[in-house]
Amino acid sequence: MIVQDLPRVHAQLVAGRPLVQNITNTVVQQFSANVLLAIGASPAMLDHPADAGEFAGTADALLVNFGTASDQQLLASDAAIAVAETYGKPWVLDPVSMGVVRYRSGRIRQASAHHPTVIRGNASEIAALAGVGHGGHGVDSTMDVDAVLPAAIRLAQATGSIIAVSGIRDAVLSVTGDTVEIARVGGGSALMPRVVGTGCALGSAVAAYLAAGRQDPEEHLDFVATVAAHAHFKLAGAAAGQRTQSPGSFGVAFIDALYELNSDQLAGADVASTTRTLSDFAGAST
Amino acid sequence: MIVQDLPRVHAQLVAGRPLVQNITNTVVQQFSANVLLAIGASPAMLDHPADAGEFAGTADALLVNFGTASDQQLLASDAAIAVAETYGKPWVLDPVSMGVVRYRSGRIRQASAHHPTVIRGNASEIAALAGVGHGGHGVDSTMDVDAVLPAAIRLAQATGSIIAVSGIRDAVLSVTGDTVEIARVGGGSALMPRVVGTGCALGSAVAAYLAAGRQDPEEHLDFVATVAAHAHFKLAGAAAGQRTQSPGSFGVAFIDALYELNSDQLAGADVASTTRTLSDFAGAST
Amino acid sequence: MIVQDLPRVHAQLVAGRPLVQNITNTVVQQFSANVLLAIGASPAMLDHPADAGEFAGTADALLVNFGTASDQQLLASDAAIAVAETYGKPWVLDPVSMGVVRYRSGRIRQASAHHPTVIRGNASEIAALAGVGHGGHGVDSTMDVDAVLPAAIRLAQATGSIIAVSGIRDAVLSVTGDTVEIARVGGGSALMPRVVGTGCALGSAVAAYLAAGRQDPEEHLDFVATVAAHAHFKLAGAAAGQRTQSPGSFGVAFIDALYELNSDQLAGADVASTTRTLSDFAGAST
Repeated sequence: MIVQDLPRVHAQLVAGRPLVQNITNTVVQQFSANVLLAIGASPAMLDHPADAGEFAGTADALLVNFGTASDQQLLASDAAIAVAETYGKPWVLDPVSMGVVRYRSGRIRQASAHHPTVIRGNASEIAALAGVGHGGHGVDSTMDVDAVLPAAIRLAQATGSIIAVSGIRDAVLSVTGDTVEIARVGGGSALMPRVVGTGCALGSAVAAYLAAGRQDPEEHLDFVATVAAHAHFKLAGAAAGQRTQSPGSFGVAFIDALYELNSDQLAGADVASTTRTLSDFAGAST
Repeated sequence: MIVQDLPRVHAQLVAGRPLVQNITNTVVQQFSANVLLAIGASPAMLDHPADAGEFAGTADALLVNFGTASDQQLLASDAAIAVAETYGKPWVLDPVSMGVVRYRSGRIRQASAHHPTVIRGNASEIAALAGVGHGGHGVDSTMDVDAVLPAAIRLAQATGSIIAVSGIRDAVLSVTGDTVEIARVGGGSALMPRVVGTGCALGSAVAAYLAAGRQDPEEHLDFVATVAAHAHFKLAGAAAGQRTQSPGSFGVAFIDALYELNSDQLAGADVASTTRTLSDFAGAST
Repeated sequence: MIVQDLPRVHAQLVAGRPLVQNITNTVVQQFSANVLLAIGASPAMLDHPADAGEFAGTADALLVNFGTASDQQLLASDAAIAVAETYGKPWVLDPVSMGVVRYRSGRIRQASAHHPTVIRGNASEIAALAGVGHGGHGVDSTMDVDAVLPAAIRLAQATGSIIAVSGIRDAVLSVTGDTVEIARVGGGSALMPRVVGTGCALGSAVAAYLAAGRQDPEEHLDFVATVAAHAHFKLAGAAAGQRTQSPGSFGVAFIDALYELNSDQLAGADVASTTRTLSDFAGAST
């Protein structure tokens, strides 16, 4: 892919207004819904076991995040994931807190076996899900993106998912046979980790972009869509960081900037995409 | 009613600081609480089955919204609604997601049989509760207010409730025998649907206004109170829209504007109230 | 203690970035997380019974608030409190809604028997937990701080906890034998009670400061840490109140001001600390 591919999927998102089902933690539900509305998607947060599966049949994409999952939310996720998997709907797994506590980690691992289209987390979470490292420090990553790339590649091989690792310079990667497609996305602001939900809401935005990238059923733009969501966030973060240097007003300015971005601006994102082979990455199983 | 009736109920709200119990979805709890504080009410979100009914006996009004209801929240609602119905406390039902999924729709329908003082939703939700249409697109309406008026009138007849339909030009209506009292409330901003919770929090505001309108137990100002809540929102939305054209800062400016409004300004709201007969509305059962 | 002690514990907080587990109500989770991030702590909201206790073993401090507790959150609290108590981790109990409803009040009373390091609430809640008064009006206090000091002292004696009473002029007190150490903290803004979560998030901030004050395991600065959290809030509230007089923008400015405060500024807080004897307080059991 090249950065010039990104505007198209954004335009499709705005035109299609995809309905995104979010089974996510209660800390970030409001922020994630406002992020989805700002980028032009339609959010829904239904998470009851009796209807989450039914709703997944209607929604255009699904985001699952077990950050504060109750038993009912876990059962709702099981149902919604089953529908998404069965009917080939795009869905995103956010492995928040993977490796931090055992029960939740087991539940995240179980979910990862159901072919998420994208797994998006910070470096510590991705490492833990790949079987390396111990997870992060609460919501914070204690590893950096570069260090975790071999583990991310192994995770891509094991799950068939696109793996997205958030950090100072995000990585989005996909493995097909011996080939690794990898995009790095820079920009953003150091204040982003100071606003709760900027990571979790990115998972929701990826789900919205995935739906947009499947407007033409013959052509799935999953990789481009995932990169576009990351680029959108980095550009909005940088714009917000130009307006304020404190986190309360940054959170507000970030939503404004997500909304104000137009499709063409995405072509100006700091995205570097390359195709490599497995042997380029020490530690990836070849 | 006439628009000059609105300032009085706002003044009573500010003076009485009614305590509003909100059993509502976790996406909008923070926003709804801040809206209630901004307009001068006192919010409480207790939603445990063991004490929600007890608390309903203390609260001045109740708002029920099943957007992300767990089983415990559903049981808490049952208890609180029973107390409100038994003791004649004003309560508002927000049928969010009515018609979108079956289990929840059944639960909303059940609740609507317990004589809510007001049922407030968007056009798709009101249509679905009236037995027409299929509900909305997540939190968004796919119908407009005018199209749903006959259904809203049927719902008013079936429930005895005041029906409030949110949209570009809100409708508030009440049916007594052959007579339909209907008020239309204009104003607001196109950004309101871009901020999650502006609809759900309006339900909470209606509950607060209903309590204020019953300060004198001999005289229930339910209809005026419902219109006043809607007018308050439209005026604040318009004021916020003058300050910013992006949704993050709009949400902040909206809370500010709700707070800054004084009673007299409500008399300047864009409210048109008329009395009609059932036969004026095609499709309403006469 | 003297006000000059406060900067040190703030500096330790920023340097140590303590991980604070919050089992708290869903209304304020986002705000509390943003407050913790703004003051330099790391928030986590895990509240599932299967891993809340395990996580309490990792976290540096714990905050418990039953405002919207489900059965699962109550069980998660039981587990986390047991771990905190057993391993001597600092933990804060926020008795929100104490005295308002029976089941929750019983649960709060049970929790208070497990040696919270600090109990922080408004005057009505502290009075109700001490066995005086009937709790507040929803989230609002109906009593003032001065009136509740004798009850707060009795509660300190009964629990061994530091008691913090929020109000126009906060009180933080600790009882050792016949001696009452008491600090009063002034400042802030009348808009603080108009923003939901400013009270609940203070409990989270106290937990973060407690962890910071135990950086040296030989020297627990619990009292100073509790006062520092209160002073930090009052200074930030005053700063926010200089920027805006409306609650939406005040909430944003408050987060900004929490973040912008540097350690030295804490020495300028309006804090008066004295040592008294029990006999100075009418109504305290001597």
